[in-house]
Amino acid sequence: MELFTANFPCLAEMFSAGAAFPLLSVMAQEAAVEGPSVTDVLLTANNIWMMVAAALVFIMHLGFAGVEAGFTQAKNTVNILFKNTLTPVLGVVTYALIGFALMYPGDFNGFFGFNVDSWNTIWFSPGNADITAGYADGGYTFWTDFFFQAMFAATCATIVSGAVAERIKLSAYLTFTLCFVSFVYPLIGSWKWGGGFLDELGFVDFAGSTLVHSVGGWGALIGIWLLGPRIGKYENGKTSEIAGSSVPLATIGVFLLWLGWFGFNGGSVLSADPGLVSLVLTTTVLGACGGAIGGHFTSMIAMKRIDFGMVLNGVLAGLVGITASADIITPLEALIIGGIAGILVVFSVMLLDKLKLDDCVGAVSVHLTCGIWGTLATGIFGEGASFMPQLYGVLACGAAASIGAFIIFSIIKATIGLRVSPEMEKHGLDSEEHGIRGYTILMED
Amino acid sequence: MELFTANFPCLAEMFSAGAAFPLLSVMAQEAAVEGPSVTDVLLTANNIWMMVAAALVFIMHLGFAGVEAGFTQAKNTVNILFKNTLTPVLGVVTYALIGFALMYPGDFNGFFGFNVDSWNTIWFSPGNADITAGYADGGYTFWTDFFFQAMFAATCATIVSGAVAERIKLSAYLTFTLCFVSFVYPLIGSWKWGGGFLDELGFVDFAGSTLVHSVGGWGALIGIWLLGPRIGKYENGKTSEIAGSSVPLATIGVFLLWLGWFGFNGGSVLSADPGLVSLVLTTTVLGACGGAIGGHFTSMIAMKRIDFGMVLNGVLAGLVGITASADIITPLEALIIGGIAGILVVFSVMLLDKLKLDDCVGAVSVHLTCGIWGTLATGIFGEGASFMPQLYGVLACGAAASIGAFIIFSIIKATIGLRVSPEMEKHGLDSEEHGIRGYTILMED
Amino acid sequence: MELFTANFPCLAEMFSAGAAFPLLSVMAQEAAVEGPSVTDVLLTANNIWMMVAAALVFIMHLGFAGVEAGFTQAKNTVNILFKNTLTPVLGVVTYALIGFALMYPGDFNGFFGFNVDSWNTIWFSPGNADITAGYADGGYTFWTDFFFQAMFAATCATIVSGAVAERIKLSAYLTFTLCFVSFVYPLIGSWKWGGGFLDELGFVDFAGSTLVHSVGGWGALIGIWLLGPRIGKYENGKTSEIAGSSVPLATIGVFLLWLGWFGFNGGSVLSADPGLVSLVLTTTVLGACGGAIGGHFTSMIAMKRIDFGMVLNGVLAGLVGITASADIITPLEALIIGGIAGILVVFSVMLLDKLKLDDCVGAVSVHLTCGIWGTLATGIFGEGASFMPQLYGVLACGAAASIGAFIIFSIIKATIGLRVSPEMEKHGLDSEEHGIRGYTILMED
Repeated sequence: MELFTANFPCLAEMFSAGAAFPLLSVMAQEAAVEGPSVTDVLLTANNIWMMVAAALVFIMHLGFAGVEAGFTQAKNTVNILFKNTLTPVLGVVTYALIGFALMYPGDFNGFFGFNVDSWNTIWFSPGNADITAGYADGGYTFWTDFFFQAMFAATCATIVSGAVAERIKLSAYLTFTLCFVSFVYPLIGSWKWGGGFLDELGFVDFAGSTLVHSVGGWGALIGIWLLGPRIGKYENGKTSEIAGSSVPLATIGVFLLWLGWFGFNGGSVLSADPGLVSLVLTTTVLGACGGAIGGHFTSMIAMKRIDFGMVLNGVLAGLVGITASADIITPLEALIIGGIAGILVVFSVMLLDKLKLDDCVGAVSVHLTCGIWGTLATGIFGEGASFMPQLYGVLACGAAASIGAFIIFSIIKATIGLRVSPEMEKHGLDSEEHGIRGYTILMED
Repeated sequence: MELFTANFPCLAEMFSAGAAFPLLSVMAQEAAVEGPSVTDVLLTANNIWMMVAAALVFIMHLGFAGVEAGFTQAKNTVNILFKNTLTPVLGVVTYALIGFALMYPGDFNGFFGFNVDSWNTIWFSPGNADITAGYADGGYTFWTDFFFQAMFAATCATIVSGAVAERIKLSAYLTFTLCFVSFVYPLIGSWKWGGGFLDELGFVDFAGSTLVHSVGGWGALIGIWLLGPRIGKYENGKTSEIAGSSVPLATIGVFLLWLGWFGFNGGSVLSADPGLVSLVLTTTVLGACGGAIGGHFTSMIAMKRIDFGMVLNGVLAGLVGITASADIITPLEALIIGGIAGILVVFSVMLLDKLKLDDCVGAVSVHLTCGIWGTLATGIFGEGASFMPQLYGVLACGAAASIGAFIIFSIIKATIGLRVSPEMEKHGLDSEEHGIRGYTILMED
Repeated sequence: MELFTANFPCLAEMFSAGAAFPLLSVMAQEAAVEGPSVTDVLLTANNIWMMVAAALVFIMHLGFAGVEAGFTQAKNTVNILFKNTLTPVLGVVTYALIGFALMYPGDFNGFFGFNVDSWNTIWFSPGNADITAGYADGGYTFWTDFFFQAMFAATCATIVSGAVAERIKLSAYLTFTLCFVSFVYPLIGSWKWGGGFLDELGFVDFAGSTLVHSVGGWGALIGIWLLGPRIGKYENGKTSEIAGSSVPLATIGVFLLWLGWFGFNGGSVLSADPGLVSLVLTTTVLGACGGAIGGHFTSMIAMKRIDFGMVLNGVLAGLVGITASADIITPLEALIIGGIAGILVVFSVMLLDKLKLDDCVGAVSVHLTCGIWGTLATGIFGEGASFMPQLYGVLACGAAASIGAFIIFSIIKATIGLRVSPEMEKHGLDSEEHGIRGYTILMED
């Protein structure tokens, strides 16, 4: 300052004047006490949104638990809830152990890499978070990144659990989840979100119609194909309806998934950018509405009844459908994409039944069929996206996910076995594997 | 800059000095890289709160679903859940199609207007959200505004659904909702929140004790009057208790509504203003507590039993009661207003039964009776509000809502019909209209 | 300005130039309209996080309701839900009446104090929140502080409710809660969080492994000891399993508690500090995962079955365990602390059964055993904490909580009585005290 005022005498008095020149003296004071900078506060705000988004994605696990337990039989309720509780547990722990470093490898060959630095930070960071400043362009901290992405990873495995329910061995499912979330999901994810070869090809997948939903959906499809249908599902050339235990539980599940999707898509902006996040929430909600309307009318026409299950699956179908493009489409396009997803989910459910592929909750139709649709729709409607890279991404990820799932399921089948005994399936998994029942709600007197 | 330094030579060197004059050079740098401004960051923070609030209002729809399905019979559970799932779907889509532009018409005659600009923005905006900067004094973006208000709109219709449950035709309910949310709710809303004639008269309704709750409550009252009571409800001069299917489900619903109300009222501040929003959350929670206490003691005295239903409805009554004034009352006043709402809801339920007006879940008592009370209480307790404009607002909105509901229900009655057949009512709407049951939870072995 | 430009003529033209000198003229304009300061915006952001955290803690009350109603018999469901609904009501109102002023007394003797100023603010503040500016170093406002802490206070009482369920008189429970939340919880809390003698001794308890969870756990232990076990629980030298009514309801409860804990721990940072809050969320989720894994394997080995209840209680055990240290441990340490908590909870449940202490939901094992463990673990792993102050805090708080609970329960036992009649216990509390049943879900046709 002295040097400066010596050179610019007309300003020398200005700085000593203080009260007479309040603006600059306030600025000098602020710099002196090292108050928060605008950039710090923006990081704080962005990070709040990302943490809220992660918490919303967390609650999707309860949503999946509700949908799956509600749509399946009461004799298997505890088994399903057990799986859905352990899925986020395994998802988070394996993501810390392997997934995060595999999915975001830093500079890599575009196909496979491992980030030793982030792995070391997770496991050997000191007991404070000072290391996180200046991460991710001020959108969030290192730990928020891990927390949000770990919640995402766990959803991918959960998709499988509903499809294969009511006849898969508990140990087989848990082993599959462990392998799928540790290796298949993060490896495929690195190809796009880690900056790999699909990213360089111009493939666009905002929040994971392909990278999360159809990857999980391929796992589910391979699973139900290798497992075979539940006893009695397809007999004498007819498809039996196996009634779910609790429609309220399934409804709670769908609403919580819908809520969680505001974090799933809204957090995928990777900051709290007001214009972009609020557009994403709007397209997300309109996608869900389109899906519900599409599912309702299509089931009325194709199935000739007011099928509430198809409205619920329509909501989820619409949400999966707009997940790839929620940030680059208009609200009108969101309604159209969601509506078509709602139509597709009904026909997909009917087709799977024709193929005798028994998906207890419609997971393949919701996550795979509509995940593919959403990814391709991004190439049709999305600003800045084009069709061929989208198709290429669908095929590459589909091949990798289904081959990965096939290898894992096949090894499990050859070793510990995939399927419970017919007696156990008939009696229900709860009393056999867990020794308790899901509901004991009849009064004795 | 060149022009400037030419004119002010004593400052020319100052800007070239850079390092010698750090404060101004930082500023120049910031301007150069176009870093975020304080105003930008405040918008980001405000917008986060508004998006969180909108998500909380969304979850109220699950809350309504839980309350209504829990308090009604198991044979109608799927029907109720179906309606409560389609209500937000229809609410959001019609709000985009008509409601938003009708409710916030911009400059208008105070009675009826339509905002062509916002309608065009919703339907023909480009696939990015740049258009939203500088909207709403930095409180939130255009899309957040739409998203939050659309969630609000849908709650108004849901209020009707519980009251008229167990005997209304599905098509009749959906048609009513479509018309009521498209026209009646946004038109009345424009009179106050759109800056219309009630706003100019000094009518105060912070988050909608009248504009949302009593408008929905009038719709419910007209509905149950035109429909008549359920078979067996009032026979041989006695009022039968028709037991609800699941108290846990109703409790989940009330807690989710309570949670959602923190967004309903907290978001109605229309920014994240720390002092104001936190006061609103405090008055909101104390209103709910007052309502629970009022409902508990009043039912113990008036009904001579520990009536859990009246505690749950007391919570909701208290919440409806403080909704009109949550930002301009003290915590003590919130407790009083909520407590009186809890007392009123019990007597209102008893009065409706005397009048043989069969409200399955107490919606009229909670939303209409306590909505009126909350609006008038604002005139008594609220800082800056006075009684007569409040009374005038209650009457004007009540007249409009009940006339609107009467016209819609009458047209439906004359065309597709309001009520299901007595056989269908006795068998339950689920097996007749939907072909499935709400619960299948008995073990076979 | 005139004075100033008179003294510094070379700058006079500069300020009148306006457009030619945009940076300073913007600054002058901002100062003129009194735009938001960086500090204001940081307060806004911090306060948003604290309000979200408080809302998440609120939803823990629904979580407790679900766990307790799910793990107990259907004949007592309404009674439990009634208690869990009134607990936050009483918790918030008594916290306003007494608790807040007792817990944060300002300058005091370190053992007992009462903050007359904050009490006056709660009850006699004007109808606006201007008084809240500049509170708590910009972390949150006065009302956010009250709202967040009141939600915390109510959780402490809820811990007791599950343990003593199915045989305690409703009036006895409500009286206990009233006294415990009014006096015992805030008094003990003031010793650390109010800046009392434990704080000065170096006792560390981030979010309340001791101050909330083990205090509640001591109350639960004293309660089940004085009440005695449920009829039939320990007969002929055997421990009967009394099956819970609804595993899905208990699972919903655990997931909501887990979600709420992100606010419970995340909000205990008392600001939105990005690095610290995101570390806390990461350690919190890893603590829960560790607990689930620990509970799963320990019950497989010790109980020889896949016990879902122990996975659910393991999640809660892990969460209680990391609550004391979530901000000063590494993720690896969180996994270890949570894992050990998951092991301890299983053995604690088995030990209590050996001692014929009948805890319906495992509340003592989760909150007391793991609360003590978490507090001591802070002395072992936590940066900046040491073991002896932790042990001292455990003993001091344990003595105070158990003596307080003993006095309250004893007075109740001597006056209105603690336990319902054996007939009432057998028939269930719902039909006797409330006249309704929790579930009526069987179809009639």
